[in-house]
Amino acid sequence: MTDLKPSTTSGATDGPDVKHMKWWGWGLEGTAFHHDDKPAFAPFVKKMVGVDLNSESVAVAPAFDDLDIPSSRLTADVAGALSLIVGEDHVVIGDMERVVHTYGKSIRDLIRIRNGVFPRTPDAVVYPATESEVAKIVAASTEHDFVIIPFGGGSNIVGSLEPMPGEDRIVISLDMGRLDRVLDIDEDSGLARIQAGTQGPDIEAQLNPRGWTLGHFPDSFTHSTLGGWVATRSSGMQSDKFGDIADITRGLRMVRPDGVVVIRAVPSASTGPSLREMILGSEGRLGVITEVTVQVHRIPEKREILAYLFPTWEAGLKAMQAIAESDATPSVTRVSNEFETEMSFATSKESKGVSALVMQGLQRFLKVKGWDTAKMCLSFIGYEGSDEHVDRNQKLVNKIVKKYGGLGVGKGPGVLYDQKKFDTPYLRDFFLDHGGAADVSETSAPWSKLLPLYNGVYAAANRAFEKVGVQGLIMAHLSHSYHTGACLYFTFAFEHGDRPLEQYDVVKKAIQDAFIAEGGTVSHHHGVGLEHAPWMRDDVSAPGLALMQGLLDSADPAGRFNPGKVTGK
Amino acid sequence: MTDLKPSTTSGATDGPDVKHMKWWGWGLEGTAFHHDDKPAFAPFVKKMVGVDLNSESVAVAPAFDDLDIPSSRLTADVAGALSLIVGEDHVVIGDMERVVHTYGKSIRDLIRIRNGVFPRTPDAVVYPATESEVAKIVAASTEHDFVIIPFGGGSNIVGSLEPMPGEDRIVISLDMGRLDRVLDIDEDSGLARIQAGTQGPDIEAQLNPRGWTLGHFPDSFTHSTLGGWVATRSSGMQSDKFGDIADITRGLRMVRPDGVVVIRAVPSASTGPSLREMILGSEGRLGVITEVTVQVHRIPEKREILAYLFPTWEAGLKAMQAIAESDATPSVTRVSNEFETEMSFATSKESKGVSALVMQGLQRFLKVKGWDTAKMCLSFIGYEGSDEHVDRNQKLVNKIVKKYGGLGVGKGPGVLYDQKKFDTPYLRDFFLDHGGAADVSETSAPWSKLLPLYNGVYAAANRAFEKVGVQGLIMAHLSHSYHTGACLYFTFAFEHGDRPLEQYDVVKKAIQDAFIAEGGTVSHHHGVGLEHAPWMRDDVSAPGLALMQGLLDSADPAGRFNPGKVTGK
Repeated sequence: MTDLKPSTTSGATDGPDVKHMKWWGWGLEGTAFHHDDKPAFAPFVKKMVGVDLNSESVAVAPAFDDLDIPSSRLTADVAGALSLIVGEDHVVIGDMERVVHTYGKSIRDLIRIRNGVFPRTPDAVVYPATESEVAKIVAASTEHDFVIIPFGGGSNIVGSLEPMPGEDRIVISLDMGRLDRVLDIDEDSGLARIQAGTQGPDIEAQLNPRGWTLGHFPDSFTHSTLGGWVATRSSGMQSDKFGDIADITRGLRMVRPDGVVVIRAVPSASTGPSLREMILGSEGRLGVITEVTVQVHRIPEKREILAYLFPTWEAGLKAMQAIAESDATPSVTRVSNEFETEMSFATSKESKGVSALVMQGLQRFLKVKGWDTAKMCLSFIGYEGSDEHVDRNQKLVNKIVKKYGGLGVGKGPGVLYDQKKFDTPYLRDFFLDHGGAADVSETSAPWSKLLPLYNGVYAAANRAFEKVGVQGLIMAHLSHSYHTGACLYFTFAFEHGDRPLEQYDVVKKAIQDAFIAEGGTVSHHHGVGLEHAPWMRDDVSAPGLALMQGLLDSADPAGRFNPGKVTGK
Repeated sequence: MTDLKPSTTSGATDGPDVKHMKWWGWGLEGTAFHHDDKPAFAPFVKKMVGVDLNSESVAVAPAFDDLDIPSSRLTADVAGALSLIVGEDHVVIGDMERVVHTYGKSIRDLIRIRNGVFPRTPDAVVYPATESEVAKIVAASTEHDFVIIPFGGGSNIVGSLEPMPGEDRIVISLDMGRLDRVLDIDEDSGLARIQAGTQGPDIEAQLNPRGWTLGHFPDSFTHSTLGGWVATRSSGMQSDKFGDIADITRGLRMVRPDGVVVIRAVPSASTGPSLREMILGSEGRLGVITEVTVQVHRIPEKREILAYLFPTWEAGLKAMQAIAESDATPSVTRVSNEFETEMSFATSKESKGVSALVMQGLQRFLKVKGWDTAKMCLSFIGYEGSDEHVDRNQKLVNKIVKKYGGLGVGKGPGVLYDQKKFDTPYLRDFFLDHGGAADVSETSAPWSKLLPLYNGVYAAANRAFEKVGVQGLIMAHLSHSYHTGACLYFTFAFEHGDRPLEQYDVVKKAIQDAFIAEGGTVSHHHGVGLEHAPWMRDDVSAPGLALMQGLLDSADPAGRFNPGKVTGK
C-alpha cells in the first residue's frame, strides 16, 4: 500500500522545516494506494459499493493554483508582535501553509479541500520553538485579541482544527512542530519528558536507541503528535497493554494566560477534580500543551502478532471477551467482522506459488470443518514481553480460541498486518478519486451491549444508505478490550453523488445516533471536535454538558482558545 | 485489636437506622484497642515516644451531656420544606446527630471533639431515601439558600465534612446512608450499579453471594461508603490489582441544581475533558453523587497474602520496584520500614509454645545470615486468581525477593495481617487516652524520587519534633506500586502537651512541605478537604489551581455545595 506512486500535485510549503502531510489528502507526497497487484480488490469494491475502480472516470484533485483561498487577515500589528516573538521566518502567511493548517483529514475535510471550500482559513501559521515563545504568543493573543488553534500533525478527523466559519478575529494556527524532542528519560521510573509537537516516529526514534518505547500506536501514528494525542484522548493499537493516552500521561505542562499549568508526574493522586484529566481531551480549549511526561517501557524481548480465524463474528466477540476475563494479557486484541475480513483478503497481494496453495488448502480445510467461509472473521492478537510471558500468553489464548471454535493461522498474516497497519487512511483518497466516500466511527460499550449496539448500527446505517439512495458498505472490528467492555470500530463507504457531504451527514448521523441509543459513547478515541459535538448532550447529559461548558467558559471567557470545539460553542 | 471492651460513652443517635461510628472516636461502640495480651507494645511505645501506657493518668473523653453544642439554626421554613421531601423522621436536629455529622475522624477531629470544640455544627441531618429526594433537597437549597455537605460513612481524615466556621447560612449534613443497595449486576460485563451511601461491608455482602467482589478495601472500609470513596479519589489495599477508585468507577449519577449529571458506564471514552474525572475527587463541591457504576470481579478461586522479610528498607523498596517491572501482577505490594516493622511485632500477641520457638529460631537464623534484625523490614504481598495464576506469581515474586536478599516467612503473618487490617485506626483513640497524638500522611512519587522523598520526610519530621519539643516517632510503608512509582504512607506519633493541635500543625506541615519539595503529590488517596488545601497551589501550580477554582465557581456560584473544601475557598 505504501508503494511509491508519483502524485501530480505538490505539497511543498513555504514554512520552516516541519513535516506536513499532503495538502489535499493523507500522508506523504508521492505515496498512495493502488490495486495493481491486488486482483481481488476491484471486484470486492464493485460488489460492495458499486464503484468501478477500472472505469476511466477518475477524479483529479484541483491544482493548488486554481483554488480560491481567502486572503490572510493578519494585521501589521499582530504580524509584528508575533515576529518579535518567534522571528519573521516562523510567522507564515503563504496560501499553501494556511491551507495545510485549515483542516484535519476527515472525509469532510478531504471533500472540502478537493472542492476548494474554505469558509475561513487561519490568517497565519506560527512556529514557536520553546515554551517561553508559546507563553509570549498566548500573552499576545490576550493583548491583540486573536484566536489560537494549536496544531500537531494535522491528522484529526473530527474537525478539531478548523477556524469557525464566522470568526471575525485574527486566527493563528499554532504549529507545534519545532517542539519535537524527547527532553529526558528517567530510567529508574520509566518516565520520559517529551515536547508536545513530537510526531510518533520521532518519539520512537529518540526512545528506541536508549532501549525504551512509548508503545502508543494510533492509526495516525506516522503523522500525529504527542500533544495531539493528549488533546484528543487518543488510544493506540497496543493500548490493551500500554493503556490509553490518559493512562500513559503522568505529568504535563500547558500554557495559559496566567502562566504555565504544571501537573507533576506522579503515579497516582487524590487531589481534587483531576486537572490532568481535564486537560486530556481539551482539544486546545484550555490552553496550549507544551510538554508531556509519559510512562515508557523497556523494549520487550519478544513481540509477535498472531492471526486467528473465527467461524462467526459472534464467536470472535465471545473469544475476545473471554480473553479479557482470563489471566492472559495480550497487547492487541482485534477481530474483524465478515465484511472487513473479506476486505482484508481482497487487499492482499495476489497469492502465488506456495502461498496460493496454502490458502486453497485452508479454504478446503475450513469447508470440511463445516465453516461457511463467507462468515469467517479474521483476528489479530498481539503479545509482548519476555519469551516466557509471550509463550504462556499464547497458550492461554489458544485455549480460548479453540473453545470458541477458532483457529490459529500463524505469524504470516500478523507480520503483514504489522507492516501495513498505518496505511489504511491512504485508501480514502484513492476511493475519492473513483467517486467513493469512506469514513469511520468508533465507540465503546459494555460487553453486554456490544452485539445489540453492533446490530443497531448496522440497521441504522443500512436505512441511511437507502435513504440517500446509495449502495453502501459498513464493516467493523473490535479494536480494544477492557475488563467491562470493548471498542467497536466501524468503517463505512458508498458511491457518492453530486453532494457527497449531504449523503455523508445522513449516514454519519445514523451511526452516531445508534451509538447513543445502544449505550455506547460518542467516541472511544477520535475525540469530539465539531463533528461529534452535536452528540455531547446525549453522551454526558445536559447538566453534564453545562458543567463542561462552565469549565471552558471560566477558563477562557473571551473564547480565544480554539473556540467552538467539543461543546459546539 | 477488635476485642470487645465496653466503652463508657454512648453512641446512640436519635436518627434513622443508619450505622454511624462513635461520636468521639473511630469505629463501633464497644470496640477498642487494648494491649493486655501484647507484652511488647507498652515498652515499644515508651521507647519510641516516651508515653507510659501503664501510668494511671488516662484521659477520659467528656460525657456527651457536658459538651457545649451550638443550637441548630434550622428555620421552620427550611424544616418544613425538608420534612415535606423526606418525612419528618428523616430531618434530625438532635445534638448527638449533629455532633456525629460535624467532623470526620482525623486526629484534628478527634482532639476537637474530645475538647468540645464546635465552632459550627450542621443545623440538621437529612436522610434522603431516593435520588429524587436528593434532587428535591438540592432544589430546596437553591430556593432557601442553605448549604449541603454530603456525608457517607464519616471516616474522612482531611476535613472534608465540617461546616466552615463562619458560615452564616443554614448547613445541612446530607447523610446518604439510606441509599445503601446494590441495584443491579451486569454479569456479562462485570459492572454493578450501586447506591452512593452503601458502606464497604454492605457492598461486599450484596455482591459476594452472587459470586462477585468490588475488591476495594481502603483502611476505612468498614465505615466508609462508595460515594465517599469516589468523592475523595480513594485507593484500596488491593488496588494494585483492582485499580484505584478512579479506575473502578465507570459510570455515575450526580444531582445538580439543573438536573442529574449522568455519566454512562463505558469502558473508555475520548469525549472532551473527562466529566467522570472531574466528579472523582470533587468532595461534594460539584453536587451530590447518588449512584456509581463500578467494575466488579468474580470472586477469585484463590486468595493469599504472604509475608516476607527484607534485610533493609532500601532492599524492600528495590524489590517492590522490581516486582512492578516484572510480569508478576500481585494484588497487594506492601513493605514497612524498620520502625513500622518493630511496631508490627510489638502489637503481636505474646508468642507462646511452638510459635515462640519458631520466632526465636527465625531470629537466630537471620543473625547467622548476617542480618541486623533491628533493620529488617516486613513485607506483605497478596495474590488473587486461579490456582495456577497464584502459583506462578508467587514463583515470580520469590525470585525477586531472593535477588534482593529477602526471605519468605509464609502465610501465618499474612493471615493475621488480613484479619487485622481494618483495626489500625482504633489505635489513635487509645493513644489519645494516654496523652499521645498520632496521624498519617501519604503521598506518591516516581521510583527515582522515592528514597530521597523518604529521607526528606524523615529529616523534616524530626526537625519538627525537635521544634515542638517532643520525642516523636515517624514510621512508613510502601502501600501501592505502579509502573512509574509508588505510594509511601507515613504514620507519626508523639506525646502531646497542652496544645496538641499546635504541635500537630507543625509536624504535619513539615511532612507535607517535604512531599512537595521532593516531588510527591499532596495526597495519594486521602483527598484534600481543608487539611491539605494549603498545599494545592504547590501541588498543581497557581494557574492549575485557578483553573480548578474556575470550575468550582462556575459549577456552584453561590457556594452551596460543601464550600471551602479542596481549594480552601
